Amino acid sequence: MTEQIQGEIPVRTVERLVQYRRLLDDLSARKVEYVHSQEIAELAHNSAAQVRRDLMALGYTGSPARGYAVQELIARIGGLFDKTRDRKVALVGLGKLGHALLSFFALRPAHLRIVAAFDNDPEKINREVGGCMCHPVARMPEIIAREGITVGIIAVPAPAAQQVADLMVLAGIRGFLNFAPVPLKVPRYAFIDNVDIAMKLEKVAFFAEPAGEKTPC
Amino acid sequence: MTEQIQGEIPVRTVERLVQYRRLLDDLSARKVEYVHSQEIAELAHNSAAQVRRDLMALGYTGSPARGYAVQELIARIGGLFDKTRDRKVALVGLGKLGHALLSFFALRPAHLRIVAAFDNDPEKINREVGGCMCHPVARMPEIIAREGITVGIIAVPAPAAQQVADLMVLAGIRGFLNFAPVPLKVPRYAFIDNVDIAMKLEKVAFFAEPAGEKTPC
Repeated sequence: MTEQIQGEIPVRTVERLVQYRRLLDDLSARKVEYVHSQEIAELAHNSAAQVRRDLMALGYTGSPARGYAVQELIARIGGLFDKTRDRKVALVGLGKLGHALLSFFALRPAHLRIVAAFDNDPEKINREVGGCMCHPVARMPEIIAREGITVGIIAVPAPAAQQVADLMVLAGIRGFLNFAPVPLKVPRYAFIDNVDIAMKLEKVAFFAEPAGEKTPC
Repeated sequence: MTEQIQGEIPVRTVERLVQYRRLLDDLSARKVEYVHSQEIAELAHNSAAQVRRDLMALGYTGSPARGYAVQELIARIGGLFDKTRDRKVALVGLGKLGHALLSFFALRPAHLRIVAAFDNDPEKINREVGGCMCHPVARMPEIIAREGITVGIIAVPAPAAQQVADLMVLAGIRGFLNFAPVPLKVPRYAFIDNVDIAMKLEKVAFFAEPAGEKTPC
């Protein structure tokens, strides 16, 4: 059932469901039992119609009078993401950004754990960095296979990124979060999301109008 | 002219133009003089039609036989981004992620400089962190106005983020790059881009199919 839903669910919907789950956890902590789509929409800064469409993907429509039961909704979204529970993650590239990502992901999300880091810097190899052992890149295939790692974070410089991604694919990585400022090719059966931080800052600066008149389309 | 183009140009086009400029810089370094839309598309992993549409926004169509002159294209894209040259940036939140962002942006893009950092940790206040002076959050309005800063990076914990964003708006920030895992409200005349790293890792894990069959829509 979950498999079937997951096969149809669009990327943007998954992003929003992750966000709704966080908002619902907050509501639950404040002992809120029922919530209407309008309230979720307001917290998530989108429309009630969008929220209803997204939640329909879970096969749960709530009650028109009382809205959605918060606990039920948390359980439904949780069920969808259950298969990602305790999934192991590899991080490649332990420069400043890689280092910060390691610290950041050590805390959350708790069910996705970085269990191995890779770098070619002799100063880092075979040492524990932020609670995670750093191995040479050449040992990637062996360690990724042994640990059953399927998710990878790329934080290497742009010129090295494609080669690293190719190696990771061969080793069995199927989901990639890429921080290298270059678009990477992965096979169709793998999934990649690029987070080009420098590009995003350029974009924000481009649309930062000191005059304060225009909004982008 | 540039103003007019900028007023019409969509967010995604700006993202791609930043990317094309990088690719063109690489080609230029390799002494390539002309380039066809197909070649740019291949490097950028999109379609030649998309590249032609994006470049048409610059008012430059190239020659069907020889393609686009690399130098001319670099100059055109540069002209569009000229107004973001030497724009000053403020970073709020000097935890591990904020710290890493400071190091990261110290290098690139060179024309966007983080000139002030803010945090409320007494250990950090009034000290230089990564070449940048850290001030208490309360001094934001004064320093942002004095320095003429219009771009801001938010790297504070989620519960503090909206209040920080409100303060930044009041101080004159018009473009926001938000790393706090919560959607933020800014006035319509400001621009915000949210980079929710934890959510992105969850999404990537969700679509990382060990079986290696499905691709998301």
